[in-house]
Amino acid sequence: MRSGFAIRPSSAPLLTADQPLLRRSRGTINRPIRATTPSPCLRLTTALAVRSDFQPDEARVPAALQLPVPPVSNFKIALCQLLVTPDKERNIARARKAIEEAAGRGAQLVLLPEIWNSPYSNDNFPVYAEDIEGVGDAAPSFSMLSEAARSLQITIIGGSIPERSGDRLYNTCCVFGTDGKLLGKHRKIHLFDIDIPGEISFKESNTLTAGKDATIVDTDVGHIGIGICHDIRFPELAMLYAARGAHLLCYPGAFNITTGSLLWELMQRARAADNQLFVATCSPARDTGACYIAWGHSTLVGPIGEVIAMADHEEAIIVEEVNYSLTELRRSHLPLEQQRRGDLYRLVDVHRLNSRGL
Amino acid sequence: MRSGFAIRPSSAPLLTADQPLLRRSRGTINRPIRATTPSPCLRLTTALAVRSDFQPDEARVPAALQLPVPPVSNFKIALCQLLVTPDKERNIARARKAIEEAAGRGAQLVLLPEIWNSPYSNDNFPVYAEDIEGVGDAAPSFSMLSEAARSLQITIIGGSIPERSGDRLYNTCCVFGTDGKLLGKHRKIHLFDIDIPGEISFKESNTLTAGKDATIVDTDVGHIGIGICHDIRFPELAMLYAARGAHLLCYPGAFNITTGSLLWELMQRARAADNQLFVATCSPARDTGACYIAWGHSTLVGPIGEVIAMADHEEAIIVEEVNYSLTELRRSHLPLEQQRRGDLYRLVDVHRLNSRGL
Repeated sequence: MRSGFAIRPSSAPLLTADQPLLRRSRGTINRPIRATTPSPCLRLTTALAVRSDFQPDEARVPAALQLPVPPVSNFKIALCQLLVTPDKERNIARARKAIEEAAGRGAQLVLLPEIWNSPYSNDNFPVYAEDIEGVGDAAPSFSMLSEAARSLQITIIGGSIPERSGDRLYNTCCVFGTDGKLLGKHRKIHLFDIDIPGEISFKESNTLTAGKDATIVDTDVGHIGIGICHDIRFPELAMLYAARGAHLLCYPGAFNITTGSLLWELMQRARAADNQLFVATCSPARDTGACYIAWGHSTLVGPIGEVIAMADHEEAIIVEEVNYSLTELRRSHLPLEQQRRGDLYRLVDVHRLNSRGL
Repeated sequence: MRSGFAIRPSSAPLLTADQPLLRRSRGTINRPIRATTPSPCLRLTTALAVRSDFQPDEARVPAALQLPVPPVSNFKIALCQLLVTPDKERNIARARKAIEEAAGRGAQLVLLPEIWNSPYSNDNFPVYAEDIEGVGDAAPSFSMLSEAARSLQITIIGGSIPERSGDRLYNTCCVFGTDGKLLGKHRKIHLFDIDIPGEISFKESNTLTAGKDATIVDTDVGHIGIGICHDIRFPELAMLYAARGAHLLCYPGAFNITTGSLLWELMQRARAADNQLFVATCSPARDTGACYIAWGHSTLVGPIGEVIAMADHEEAIIVEEVNYSLTELRRSHLPLEQQRRGDLYRLVDVHRLNSRGL
């Protein structure tokens, strides 16, 4: 059953700066709220003048949306931790087979790894990149995902692939609905530039361009906020998605073995616990012969930061249940949202604020 | 060696809403910046209109202060994980002895647990509370801490005690300088109200009043942001302290055994890794006969989220080195601050913004 979410073109992300913002609440019809709210600037100024209250609602600007009733109460998610090789055709065939196996095991949502169709390197990104606005052979990875989603009638969060758009390259995650249509597209917004002498040096920004938008997608299995790998290092993004009503955050990611052991599990558990929602991650399997060695350990985390399932570092398909009633339960036990101090701090969602009439 | 920090009354927190904000940078003289910046509202509006850049500096409003050169490059911190009993005099004597032992082991900073002079319960808070603006016998816990700091010439972050102020009670952390003077006072700003049927039900707000201010204190061992227990659940507070130039966050805390195993280590590691700074926590030792059973596991975490030292659950004094050069190193390897997306999200420090002339 679907609840009354926003009516929107199926190919567009749920919320972008150029869309009017819709108020969502349980079982009600969405309606534009632009006319009923003061300008963000006036609103902020007025709120700041009031100091006697804790103003939990003001801790998010604009105010957090009420968590929508999810379209399903529970479902199975699959994390396909794929071994990536230099053979693109093989990678696509292998991913197709994994998706089919996951669907056969009951998964309604399949999550793939970051950069699953190409070895992870700046040299390879332009070679393996696809113009996903093209069709057929021009974008075989994209086309396979669309076809698999449609034929298996599942939602696919297609990890990420190098995307070519004009003369630019992006690290892009495409989300497909059960009809095979593109529901949304997330271009990695925090590029991974790191330099630890003697351990790892990598600069994605040498070849890639960062995306301009946070991306939350309305799917048959809930509102899903998307981040790619290094995006998970920024708590603001997860907080922003939670305020937009996300039920689940999905991060395709290829942490390396240097930062993986220390930060991979920590980051996803922290994002889940801080925002009291489900977080799923999917990494490539580890290939110790590759130039960039992925950490593996694709994981599903519940809304109190508990690890529900975690792969090791080999190729694997994890199929596990997401039960949204846990989210409601955790939030009722400990209502963090009502305990925030909008009189002390506020997280501004710039695009949502802009969409309200600045 | 002290660097050129703000000149301020030694009894006041570093930054409050009613103080002018000072710009700090390495080796330069601080100067008021009020005259050189537009109003926050204008500033926000102007910044929002510019969409072509990632605007990392705008991800904190006002902009994050440059990390000041710390007054010491490294020092020893002690975490005194004390067993708390119903005997207040015994608790004070035991704490005094632990502080002395810590100083004898070279600690320049001593951190005590949350509510170390009283059993942790709403019934006991009013009985054990002290009016810390009183003197002598009226505030024996407070007086002991001041005397210990002065006589041992160390900085003490005095965990917390129930504070009586007029007809209100607070959960309050007092910070003392090496001269025994009160450098700052943090009243817990997020009260712990939880209800997990069959496991734990506790409502601090039944007896306590929440504080109104975030508290960052300028000490002989660095800028220290203070939080008490449940304050650590809110990433915004740690982010706000980092933007104010904190070198170290200290959280006296008494997580319980239900949430402790899942969240205690997670929270402190996440706050450290997300903000690339040191985090220290101090819990009471576990007393399985108490009405509220503390988790223990006082911990020091480094700026990449690594656990440097952790107690078990028995009474213990951990003495460990804080080496600030690690902070600089981690930030140079991975400059998260420069990678933030102020075009997408902004964390507003309401009091700092107000202090700039709204």
